[in-house]
Amino acid sequence: MYNKENIFYKILKSELPAKVIYENEIALSFYDINPACKVHALVITKGLYSNFDDFASNASPKMVKDFFETVSRVANILGLSQTGYRIISNIGPNSGQEVEHFHMHILGGEPLKKTLL
Amino acid sequence: MYNKENIFYKILKSELPAKVIYENEIALSFYDINPACKVHALVITKGLYSNFDDFASNASPKMVKDFFETVSRVANILGLSQTGYRIISNIGPNSGQEVEHFHMHILGGEPLKKTLL
Repeated sequence: MYNKENIFYKILKSELPAKVIYENEIALSFYDINPACKVHALVITKGLYSNFDDFASNASPKMVKDFFETVSRVANILGLSQTGYRIISNIGPNSGQEVEHFHMHILGGEPLKKTLL
Repeated sequence: MYNKENIFYKILKSELPAKVIYENEIALSFYDINPACKVHALVITKGLYSNFDDFASNASPKMVKDFFETVSRVANILGLSQTGYRIISNIGPNSGQEVEHFHMHILGGEPLKKTLL
């Protein structure tokens, strides 16, 4: 189900560049190339999961915990823990998911619009 | 840090009504009272966590896995697995977090705007 023809796979393999924020054994975080607000980061799994459904169903409890703890840690590194932030993941056609590799968006650095939350 | 004076705590205690979609040992899902799109559900923890940071840091690996697997399951119950959906959580002031009890939004049922993803 996972298709390696996606840009995040190439970033993981260092075939494409990224402005890395943080990295550990299970995840990589970097800035979104088209920021939707003042601070816009992504956190992607190093494991090959095509979307949130795939990850939530097939990753181990330790992996899921470590990943979301990493998301929280990256927000803290970015200085967003106190000011607040939004996490988003898009799954499938109606969401506009653009890259078929599981990732969470972290959005912050300014008051975020309520539009679709 | 968790403050019981919030509406989701009251829903958990059956002191306020909700249109329940799904329930298990660790989570409760119901429809958002102010839907932002055609299908707008919430999934909240039964454990008392004030936001995503609190949950990601302090819940057990099994709890975190079970919770996000529940989010995926609720999306499936709502018929969104194939058509797609977005998950969102707001943390703190800049995000507009309205209820100080950890919850994920599930949005779908129609093509979602890209605004702030």
